[in-house]
Amino acid sequence: MAHITLKNDLPGILGPMSFSPETTKHLNGLAESLLQVESPHLNKMERELIASYVSYLNGCVFCSESHGAAADAHKGEQGWARSVWTDGSMAMLTPKMQTLLKIAAKVQSMPREVTKSDVEAARTHGVTDREIHDTVLIAAAFCMYNRYVDGLATMQPPRKDPAYKGMGEMLATKGYLQTSF
Amino acid sequence: MAHITLKNDLPGILGPMSFSPETTKHLNGLAESLLQVESPHLNKMERELIASYVSYLNGCVFCSESHGAAADAHKGEQGWARSVWTDGSMAMLTPKMQTLLKIAAKVQSMPREVTKSDVEAARTHGVTDREIHDTVLIAAAFCMYNRYVDGLATMQPPRKDPAYKGMGEMLATKGYLQTSF
Repeated sequence: MAHITLKNDLPGILGPMSFSPETTKHLNGLAESLLQVESPHLNKMERELIASYVSYLNGCVFCSESHGAAADAHKGEQGWARSVWTDGSMAMLTPKMQTLLKIAAKVQSMPREVTKSDVEAARTHGVTDREIHDTVLIAAAFCMYNRYVDGLATMQPPRKDPAYKGMGEMLATKGYLQTSF
Repeated sequence: MAHITLKNDLPGILGPMSFSPETTKHLNGLAESLLQVESPHLNKMERELIASYVSYLNGCVFCSESHGAAADAHKGEQGWARSVWTDGSMAMLTPKMQTLLKIAAKVQSMPREVTKSDVEAARTHGVTDREIHDTVLIAAAFCMYNRYVDGLATMQPPRKDPAYKGMGEMLATKGYLQTSF
């Protein structure tokens, strides 16, 4: 049971978001601008993969499963994001994505340890300033969303619960500004 | 030097914020709604103290110094926030604030370890659901802002630099929607 009375039975972040609409509009606006942007830099699948990977590293079930399912929906392959986090499929990614996920993991755990050589390694694979900026901010933002979900002990369906597939498809197709489950 | 070309020489978070106005409007909107709200629950000084304390725990010089200076400006006592983080002055705070800072510290380091007894301890001092919610979200949000600042290796004046006093006064009086330094 959540640490506060949410007056709803929505899962994960949706519970406190419904409790506090005045902060939620900014949380949703930020997610939309980071994950649903049409950009020549990172595509939506790559952005959701970064979000889900950082959430996995933070141990946040709700965010890793729902954003992993969103990445899967963009990819068209169920279970793909999980295979990247857990099964060593990271080696199947492009070298560019591998360098960005390495930067994201450092932002999650020890942000001052992102080094010039990490960034230069990414640049050798064509990574742009915008892609480094967005990778760092997506990773940072999910360190917030994950803590909001877990710090309030929200109700979360367990890993691999079928409910996440539908959430991911909705996030991938409708985005973050009109989401309801 | 920052990891990306910011095309400005603004300190700390202001550099990447200027680089990316489309995400900045949401980051500023969130800060305004969390730190500048007129509320019967937590006052602005208490909100800035939570923000600066979490930033101090994360080792983010820019955010701890600037938001510490904002807390000082609300309090009317320079160096007050730092004394809470570092000099054992936490015992001088109200029991209510002590329990909330304990929750904030857990959100920073291990959010799933915020326990029912942490929350019940706060409630015995009159803490409301809104105060627990806002404490958790302020702590979570500063885990984002801090990583954005440090993950990009932004330029930051050193601890106790006199520049922070003016920043804190501006944040305390003008808020987050029209800030420029």
